[in-house]
Amino acid sequence: MILGQNQYGKAENRIVRITREGSTHHIKDLNVSVALTGDMTDVHLSGSNANVLTTDTTKNTVFAFAKEHGIASAEEFGILLARHFVTGLPTIHSARIRIEEYAWERIETPGPKRHSFVREGRETRTAQIRFDGTAWEIVSGLKDLTVLNSTDSEFTGYVKDRYTTLPETRDRVLATQVHARWRHSGDSAPEAGWDHSYRQAREHLLAAFADTYSLSLQQTLYRMGSRVIEKCPGIDEIRLSLPNRHHFLVDLEPFGLKNDNEVYYAADRPYGLIEATILRDGAEPRIPVDMTNL
Amino acid sequence: MILGQNQYGKAENRIVRITREGSTHHIKDLNVSVALTGDMTDVHLSGSNANVLTTDTTKNTVFAFAKEHGIASAEEFGILLARHFVTGLPTIHSARIRIEEYAWERIETPGPKRHSFVREGRETRTAQIRFDGTAWEIVSGLKDLTVLNSTDSEFTGYVKDRYTTLPETRDRVLATQVHARWRHSGDSAPEAGWDHSYRQAREHLLAAFADTYSLSLQQTLYRMGSRVIEKCPGIDEIRLSLPNRHHFLVDLEPFGLKNDNEVYYAADRPYGLIEATILRDGAEPRIPVDMTNL
Amino acid sequence: MILGQNQYGKAENRIVRITREGSTHHIKDLNVSVALTGDMTDVHLSGSNANVLTTDTTKNTVFAFAKEHGIASAEEFGILLARHFVTGLPTIHSARIRIEEYAWERIETPGPKRHSFVREGRETRTAQIRFDGTAWEIVSGLKDLTVLNSTDSEFTGYVKDRYTTLPETRDRVLATQVHARWRHSGDSAPEAGWDHSYRQAREHLLAAFADTYSLSLQQTLYRMGSRVIEKCPGIDEIRLSLPNRHHFLVDLEPFGLKNDNEVYYAADRPYGLIEATILRDGAEPRIPVDMTNL
Amino acid sequence: MILGQNQYGKAENRIVRITREGSTHHIKDLNVSVALTGDMTDVHLSGSNANVLTTDTTKNTVFAFAKEHGIASAEEFGILLARHFVTGLPTIHSARIRIEEYAWERIETPGPKRHSFVREGRETRTAQIRFDGTAWEIVSGLKDLTVLNSTDSEFTGYVKDRYTTLPETRDRVLATQVHARWRHSGDSAPEAGWDHSYRQAREHLLAAFADTYSLSLQQTLYRMGSRVIEKCPGIDEIRLSLPNRHHFLVDLEPFGLKNDNEVYYAADRPYGLIEATILRDGAEPRIPVDMTNL
Repeated sequence: MILGQNQYGKAENRIVRITREGSTHHIKDLNVSVALTGDMTDVHLSGSNANVLTTDTTKNTVFAFAKEHGIASAEEFGILLARHFVTGLPTIHSARIRIEEYAWERIETPGPKRHSFVREGRETRTAQIRFDGTAWEIVSGLKDLTVLNSTDSEFTGYVKDRYTTLPETRDRVLATQVHARWRHSGDSAPEAGWDHSYRQAREHLLAAFADTYSLSLQQTLYRMGSRVIEKCPGIDEIRLSLPNRHHFLVDLEPFGLKNDNEVYYAADRPYGLIEATILRDGAEPRIPVDMTNL
Repeated sequence: MILGQNQYGKAENRIVRITREGSTHHIKDLNVSVALTGDMTDVHLSGSNANVLTTDTTKNTVFAFAKEHGIASAEEFGILLARHFVTGLPTIHSARIRIEEYAWERIETPGPKRHSFVREGRETRTAQIRFDGTAWEIVSGLKDLTVLNSTDSEFTGYVKDRYTTLPETRDRVLATQVHARWRHSGDSAPEAGWDHSYRQAREHLLAAFADTYSLSLQQTLYRMGSRVIEKCPGIDEIRLSLPNRHHFLVDLEPFGLKNDNEVYYAADRPYGLIEATILRDGAEPRIPVDMTNL
Repeated sequence: MILGQNQYGKAENRIVRITREGSTHHIKDLNVSVALTGDMTDVHLSGSNANVLTTDTTKNTVFAFAKEHGIASAEEFGILLARHFVTGLPTIHSARIRIEEYAWERIETPGPKRHSFVREGRETRTAQIRFDGTAWEIVSGLKDLTVLNSTDSEFTGYVKDRYTTLPETRDRVLATQVHARWRHSGDSAPEAGWDHSYRQAREHLLAAFADTYSLSLQQTLYRMGSRVIEKCPGIDEIRLSLPNRHHFLVDLEPFGLKNDNEVYYAADRPYGLIEATILRDGAEPRIPVDMTNL
Repeated sequence: MILGQNQYGKAENRIVRITREGSTHHIKDLNVSVALTGDMTDVHLSGSNANVLTTDTTKNTVFAFAKEHGIASAEEFGILLARHFVTGLPTIHSARIRIEEYAWERIETPGPKRHSFVREGRETRTAQIRFDGTAWEIVSGLKDLTVLNSTDSEFTGYVKDRYTTLPETRDRVLATQVHARWRHSGDSAPEAGWDHSYRQAREHLLAAFADTYSLSLQQTLYRMGSRVIEKCPGIDEIRLSLPNRHHFLVDLEPFGLKNDNEVYYAADRPYGLIEATILRDGAEPRIPVDMTNL
C-alpha cells in the first residue's frame, strides 16, 4: 500500500478587512482556503502529528496576516501566505492558497462619512497561488458571470446521426455563466497591479462575448479566451468552462400566436457544457482540465 | 374532517422576454409562480378534475401572455394574469401571482448593435399580486440585498440575565441581507410607473441604512421602513426581515497584535433575525408575519 | 407611522447533544431558531435596548438548556425554551421556537462500543412551539421527504380552455417532496411521546401516498392529510405543500423506439405546487397558509 | 495562440428508468453528464460544426440507450455510452461519462403491488467512465456520506508556531462528510457486479471510520482508504476528501455548568479539509488531486 498525493489545511476562512483613510473606509471580503503538502507519511500511518501544522493554525495565520500585512489584492495576500507556510517550516514543502473575493460598491451618502457598502453580487473573483519553495504559479479567475446575447447566434451544419433531432437555427439566444481561470506568466505583479489586471481580463471576456457573431459556443469561447491572451501580455494560459444556459423558444402556435424570438423558457438542466484551454505560443498547459464536478 | 384553505398552480415559470427597438434589445427575466383557489372540494375528495384548470395550463398562460401583452413590469404582468384567471373561469375565485425579477445590465459595445447583457446578480426584485374578483393587493419587494456599515454602529444597555455573556460595544460592523416587502395602497400604477416606484423604495432603504447611526438593528430597521412609508406616498405597509450578519472582531492578542476594528470573521450561523412591520397611520396590516422558515 | 408586529431572536443555532449510557452514545442534532415578541417599541424608535434580551443571550440559553435539561425531543426542548423566555422576563410576551432535526443512524461495529453514526439525510423533522404566557401551539412536521409512485396515477377530465395543451394520461409517474406541518390539539405530550407521535404521522403519510390510486395530486394530498387526522387522535390540523415533481415520458419515437412508461426525464422547474389544510371537525385553522416563498 | 485541451457535451441529464417485473417495479435515478473530445479545432477557430455531434444529440442518446439497453448499473450504463460515442464517429476520440445515482427504498404496502418508493437521501453514488478507443478508466465513488464518532478521537502532539492557539484534546467529536473516488483495476465488471462492489467499498469505509481510534483525521482517512484497497481486490487506487466538520464544545462555565463532552456547536465554516490518495503497490495514480474547488 502506498500513500499518494495528500494535502490538508483550513478551507473557507471568511475574512473581512476594513481599512480607513480618515472617514473613508475600504473593504476587502475574502474566502481563503489553505492546502499544504509535506512530510506527512507519519500522520497518515501512525497518527503522529509531530510534523503537522494544524489547520487551526493555518486559519489563525490568515487572520493575523490580514492585520500584519494588509490585503493589497487577493493575489498578493495569497503569495504572502504561501511563502510563509513553505519557508517557515521544514516539513511543509508546498502550499496552495485559493481565494474567492466578493466585491462591494460604496453607497454614496450626503455627509463626509464613507463607510457604507452594498455587495455587488455579480461574479465571484478567484485567485489560486501555488508555491513549492522554488516555482510560483499564479492563476486568477472568475465564476458566475452570467451573460446573454439576444441575437447574432446561430447553430447549423452539425453532424446528424440516428439520435439527432435538433433543428438548425439561424437566430437564437446565447447565454452562459462564465467560469474562467487564467495563468500569469510569472509571479511578479503586473505593472498596473493585480486588481487592474483582473478588471482588464474581465473586460476583454465581456467584450469578446458581446462582439462575436456566434456560430457555436465553442467559437465564442475561443474568441473570449484568445482575446485575453492577445490583449493581456502577462497571461499565458486561460481555461474557460461555459455552460450553455439554454433559452428555448416557447411554441405559442397552439394558442394562435407567432413567437418571433420574443418569449423564451430559461431551462435549468440539462445544459451543454463547453470547456477549453487557450495557450500563448510556447506556453505549457498547467491549469487542470476539470473545473467542475459534472 | 374538513378541507381547509387550499391553492394550486404552477410554480417557478422561468420566462425571458426579449423586446426589440431596431437593433436595441430589451430583456425581462422573470420567475413567475401562480396559485389559484376556487371550488376545489371535489378534486380533493373524489379526484374529479372537472373544476381544475391544470397547472400546465397556468404555465402556458404565463408564456402566452408575455407574447400577447408584453411585460411592462412585474406588477403589471401579475395583474393581467390574476385578472385573467379570476374572471375567466367561474370555478376560480382568487389568484395569487408571485414574481421574482432578475436584473440585467447592458454590455456596451462599439457598434450600433445593443443586444448583449450581463446579469446584475445583486438583489432579486419581487412582486406579489392577489385578486379575489373584487379587491386587489399589490406587494412589491426585494431580497438578498446585502449591505454593510463598517462603523457608526454600537450595541449597549441591554438586559443582562444569567445567560448573558455578550460584552457591550461602541463600534461594530453592522451587516444585513435586506428582505423587504411593501404593500401599495391601491392597485393603480404609481404615477411614474411600477419600475420607478421600485427604484425609489430601494434607494430609500439603502439611504436609511447608510445614514443611520445605529444603536440596534431594530432601530436601523425602523428607520429603513419608516423612510419608505414617509417618502413613498403610495406605500401603506412595509415588512422587513433583517438577518444580523455577524462580523466578529478576531482576537489577535495571542499573536501580539492589536485588532483596531480591522480584521473580522464573517460568520454564517447562527445569526440574529430582526423582523418588523411599519404601517402608515390608519393602514391595516396585511403582509404575513413569516417571511422565512427559520 | 405605526410599528406593527415585530419579533427578534437568534436563528439557526446548530446544536449537537451527546448522551451516554455506558459505552452506548445517543445523539440529537438540532437547528434551533428563537423569535421573541414583547415591549419593543423603544428599541425600534429610540434605539434603547433596555427591554432587549440580546439574541446572543437567546443563543446561550439554547446551549445551556441542552445541558441543564437535556433534549428529550424537539417538541419538549422547544416547550422548555419558550416557557423560559416568556415567564423569565416581563418585557417578553411571547416566544416562537422553531427546530429542525436531522436523524442519525447507528453504525454497528463488532466491539461493545456504540458511538459511531451516519446521518440519514432523508427528511428533515421540524417542530414549532409558540407560547404567549397562556396558550400553547405545538406544530410538528417534516420536509424534503421525496416519494414516487411509478404507476397507479392518472390525470384526466380537467377543464380545457384556450391555453390548454396537456394531453390526458391514464398512467403517469407521480412524485413529490412532502412538506407537512401538523398541529397538536394541546401542549401535553402524546401518551407514547413526541418521537413516537412523529414516526406515526410520518408512517401514515407514506402509507397513504403509496396506497392511493391517484386521480390528481390534490386527491392524494387529501388522503395523506385525512389519514393523519383519522389515525392520530392528538392531531387537529395538518397542512401539506406538495410540489408535483414532474417526470415526463421521453419521446423516443424519433429513434424508432417505443417508450412503454420506462424512460422519464425528471424536470426541475416549473413544477405544480399543490397545498391544502385538512382539519378535524370543529378545529380552527391556525397553521399559516404560506409554507413556501414561491 | 494554441487551442489546448477541450471537451464538450450535455451535462446533468436527469433520467429515471422504471423496470417492471409483474407488479413489482424497480427504479434507477441518475444524473448523467457527457464530455467528448475529438477533432474540434475547426469549431473553435472558424465556428464550423461539421465535426460536432451536438450536445442535444448526446442527451438524446442517453435517454434512448436507457430504453435500448436498460441501466444495469451506473458503471455499465456509462461504459455503453462511452463506447458508443468513441466508436460511432471518427471525429470523436474520447468520452468521459459522469453519473450521479440517487438511491430509492421501497415503501412496503399491504397489497401485492410494489411501485412506491421513498428517496433515501443519504450519500450520492458516483461513477466516471473514460474511454479513448483503447484504454478504459472506471472510477466509482460517493459523496455527502456524513459520519460522526462521538468519542475515541484525540488530537495532540502537533507543531506549535507563533500562530498556534489550539489546545490539545484527548476526547473530541470527529465528524466528516465523506467524498471518495476509487479506481478499478480494469474495465471488466467485478465478479459480483458493480452494485455489489459499490456496497462493499461503502461498507468498508464506514467500518474503518467507526473502528478507528483516531489520533488525527489523516490517520482515519488512511485507515478508510487502505481498508478499501486491502479488502476490495479490484480496486487499485482511492482518493478521499474529508472535510473536518468541527463540533466545538460549548463553554458553559459562565453559566456555572460543566460541559462534560455533552453539548456541541456544529460549525459551518471554516473547516479542515484533509485529502489523500492511497494506492495498491505498483499502481499508478490517475485520480485527479482536486475533488473540490476550495
